[in-house]
Amino acid sequence: MGSTGTDVKTPYTGLLGQDFTEMVKKSIGPKANPRLRRVMESFIQHMHDFAREISLTNDEWMMAVNMINEGGRMSDAKRNEGQLMCDVIGLESLVDDITSRAAAKAGESITSSAILGPFWRHDTPIRENGSTITFDTPADAQVVYMHGKVFCGSTGKPLANASVEAWQASTNGLYEQQDPRQREHNLRGKFITDSEGNYSFYCIRPTPYPVPDDGPAGKLLAMLDRHPWRPAHIHLIVQAEGCSPITTQIFDSDCKYLDNDSVFAVKDSLRVVFQPRKGDPKAKLDLEYNVSLAPESRS
Amino acid sequence: MGSTGTDVKTPYTGLLGQDFTEMVKKSIGPKANPRLRRVMESFIQHMHDFAREISLTNDEWMMAVNMINEGGRMSDAKRNEGQLMCDVIGLESLVDDITSRAAAKAGESITSSAILGPFWRHDTPIRENGSTITFDTPADAQVVYMHGKVFCGSTGKPLANASVEAWQASTNGLYEQQDPRQREHNLRGKFITDSEGNYSFYCIRPTPYPVPDDGPAGKLLAMLDRHPWRPAHIHLIVQAEGCSPITTQIFDSDCKYLDNDSVFAVKDSLRVVFQPRKGDPKAKLDLEYNVSLAPESRS
Repeated sequence: MGSTGTDVKTPYTGLLGQDFTEMVKKSIGPKANPRLRRVMESFIQHMHDFAREISLTNDEWMMAVNMINEGGRMSDAKRNEGQLMCDVIGLESLVDDITSRAAAKAGESITSSAILGPFWRHDTPIRENGSTITFDTPADAQVVYMHGKVFCGSTGKPLANASVEAWQASTNGLYEQQDPRQREHNLRGKFITDSEGNYSFYCIRPTPYPVPDDGPAGKLLAMLDRHPWRPAHIHLIVQAEGCSPITTQIFDSDCKYLDNDSVFAVKDSLRVVFQPRKGDPKAKLDLEYNVSLAPESRS
Repeated sequence: MGSTGTDVKTPYTGLLGQDFTEMVKKSIGPKANPRLRRVMESFIQHMHDFAREISLTNDEWMMAVNMINEGGRMSDAKRNEGQLMCDVIGLESLVDDITSRAAAKAGESITSSAILGPFWRHDTPIRENGSTITFDTPADAQVVYMHGKVFCGSTGKPLANASVEAWQASTNGLYEQQDPRQREHNLRGKFITDSEGNYSFYCIRPTPYPVPDDGPAGKLLAMLDRHPWRPAHIHLIVQAEGCSPITTQIFDSDCKYLDNDSVFAVKDSLRVVFQPRKGDPKAKLDLEYNVSLAPESRS
């Protein structure tokens, strides 16, 4: 009478085979979006294969769950720790490359993309060409006059009314939303190109800084015996009507960490050289940077 | 003069090849724990392969990041949404099986494991054998007298002073920590086996219930056209000195969702049959359930 958990005649039915993975994949119902089905089938397969491949234990898995939950809890409008956890394993860079490659067309000369990162803000103010984004300029900062043109990568023609949005950390390594001593929207600005496609503004020469290491992403970096530093860079988003927008970063060729960026965003074509600037009392350095966008909705 | 992002002589250096993945893996420093290195190398490889395989886009990835962050934000001592997100893709079941299989030895008759789930509490009270775990028993509940022995799976001898911890949802589908109308620790108890290895207590016949669907795990189930239901089950953790503890669930053979558990925890050997119970005014049903543990630290 009764049931027991130790019936020796019943073979142990484990989940280690592909049958279990197939069962989980087949649980997806007929009304699921076909793209979501493909994405989740691949994700389930890889997560199961990963667990089997390294015989992931309960304790290891629960440590990962706790890190993910902790990351979520510290994320808000000003911080995205889930994103940063992806960044330190190169996932945002890879996904960014997949996405931008899909938009580019063979033979066209399009500016390379780089990751958005967690410090972009949706409400960056539009400023006048020739004005500045550096307000509380620290004593150790070098002011740069940055300027260039936005082109159509297909026709080679300059694009008027394109938007060039730039943001960067200050020399203390902090973006304005991380630093109560910087004024709102310091080192951020959006510039609209003139009739000849020109934009221009004053900013500071970027300096390397560490990604925030007080959360699970930082904990992971420490456990992996990795440093949290990023090479000096300026973030850009460039958009124009009729073109695919480009999110990118430009890197100072003459700085540390170019070869071991903690978030793997550097591409050779995004390295820039700051030049001396003469006769401008406002800036000692000059950076000309042109951007080429791909025309959109081509297949 | 200046630098441009559109140097046509520079070939586009994408990240789609395995070289990028190797670079990310090689960033792990020499002082990292060797096991963590293996786990993360495998995880990085599978996450990158997944992204490449289905050409994961920025928007899709960011949707996933937002879901993960949202799950973390709603997780606390009483709710673990990160865990639930793993559960609905079968990951906790798989990891549990990997872990318990490592503890079992060929030829031994050990009770199968099942997932812990997100509703276990660390402070479940010890109660007397023969007492009850059902306090605010609802009118639609069927009371069960559950009893059995804990054995050593190697020697076949009963184990005294073993701990049998049980927890279950009420007939409204809620565990006590989810339901302000249930008293603290309702439907939870820990029982210590007597000198002959016996434990016993009154509980209720479990009923199917849906996993919480007000968070990202529920959202994912809905998007995948899947139901959130779990078959009727009682959770158990059984421990004894000198043995590997077992976390498991036993399932009512006569209930819905046995073949499509939303968290994939059912194993054939964990199905039980509730029998009629005569001459006990406190319970109409009887469940005898014996548990066999593996001796620990064998290699």
